Amino acid sequence: MEKNERNIKLTLAYDGTNYHGFQRQANALAVQQVLEDRLAKVFGHPLKMMGAGRTDTGVHALGQVVNFYTTGTIPTERIPLAGRRLLPKDIVIEQAQEVSSDFHARYSAHSKIYVYRILPGVVANPFTRNYAWNIPHELDVAAMQDALHVILGKHDFSAFRAAGGPPISPIREILGAYCQKDSQEIEFLFWGTGFLYHMVRNLVGTLVNVGSGKLSTDGFKEILEGRDRRKAGVTAPPQGLYLKEVNY
Amino acid sequence: MEKNERNIKLTLAYDGTNYHGFQRQANALAVQQVLEDRLAKVFGHPLKMMGAGRTDTGVHALGQVVNFYTTGTIPTERIPLAGRRLLPKDIVIEQAQEVSSDFHARYSAHSKIYVYRILPGVVANPFTRNYAWNIPHELDVAAMQDALHVILGKHDFSAFRAAGGPPISPIREILGAYCQKDSQEIEFLFWGTGFLYHMVRNLVGTLVNVGSGKLSTDGFKEILEGRDRRKAGVTAPPQGLYLKEVNY
Repeated sequence: MEKNERNIKLTLAYDGTNYHGFQRQANALAVQQVLEDRLAKVFGHPLKMMGAGRTDTGVHALGQVVNFYTTGTIPTERIPLAGRRLLPKDIVIEQAQEVSSDFHARYSAHSKIYVYRILPGVVANPFTRNYAWNIPHELDVAAMQDALHVILGKHDFSAFRAAGGPPISPIREILGAYCQKDSQEIEFLFWGTGFLYHMVRNLVGTLVNVGSGKLSTDGFKEILEGRDRRKAGVTAPPQGLYLKEVNY
Repeated sequence: MEKNERNIKLTLAYDGTNYHGFQRQANALAVQQVLEDRLAKVFGHPLKMMGAGRTDTGVHALGQVVNFYTTGTIPTERIPLAGRRLLPKDIVIEQAQEVSSDFHARYSAHSKIYVYRILPGVVANPFTRNYAWNIPHELDVAAMQDALHVILGKHDFSAFRAAGGPPISPIREILGAYCQKDSQEIEFLFWGTGFLYHMVRNLVGTLVNVGSGKLSTDGFKEILEGRDRRKAGVTAPPQGLYLKEVNY
């Protein structure tokens, strides 16, 4: 880090509907590109942001975290307001904070929380289609909550890992998980030290089989222990997934 | 009506975010155009639909009603499913019904219900921006509810009529109106025999002045009785407005 350089941490909420995920891409609009390009004006130089989590196309964020280095002079507390002026309304800077030079949005994170929203009993709803998985039948929430106990702690999550993902360790630790129904909506929460690519969506796709009566908690446990992706359920669609919080 | 011709009534929900209102336009995409063009395939001939209410750009519908005549042979009860296959996901046919030949979606309606949603205390929220009026401060719901009593019954609503609207009678009858807060959201409901162009949005823009402590119920009453549009508040933005129900 140069002299006069600050390391800035931003906490972001965004509606992922109109973006090809968080990470900058060559031929499709990503959240990172919009942030870097639009905020460069405020800081007076090109920006290079690190994001805590890659969210996929259509996935949302309630508390994504990024950091970047800047020699720009705008006071940190004014950054959210500058964001409201410069960013499209589907990306909001909730908080800006100056952090120590060694803070890294991704590598400094010790845990993350994702939520996944399902709207059961909904055949077609034009208002929720981009914000929850609309499932035509009801689901047994107590059965899904019971099955979630199986994933608590450290496990090999190969059964819930995207086929063709990078060859990294499939061991992850789940610190907390629940499933609850709030008036019409079912919300899953997954709190873990890290997540494999598509892991939350594959877990939800399999838990829906439990909630539909097609799979028991024991069956769910066998799938986890079998470490075979082909035995697990479908990948739940992206629009129900929200990166809720990154903890440091 | 020809022999073998049916008059079909559809009840529709749509997210108005991506449309230039309901009514077909020359150079912009409207809900009516999408319905007529996409459903023509099912009925085997061009369709001409009558809508109960013109919703403006960005205004939503929970229960818009249209009717049209057809010689097509698809059973009425299959129309919603055909709609799910052919229509974009932001337009949903909730119900299809065969009605008598003299039914007209607009002229047969004896009353309509609109709701308007406000999210108070919200500076910027990427998920509600298209579905409610986000207002940064809190509003006094009881004061707004009190002011709503003023509009019940038959009145000259010139004060709340869009400037430059068509030269029709400004007398309308409000059968019911309320304002309530449900967890975070404030919802207004207006039930009336008819509404002038922009009338609901102009009422809400003025009621927000009551809720903000800038206007009393007496002041609100004076504005109604003064019949001068310039004395009333701003036109509330379109994204908070929903055509909820049309009654026949």
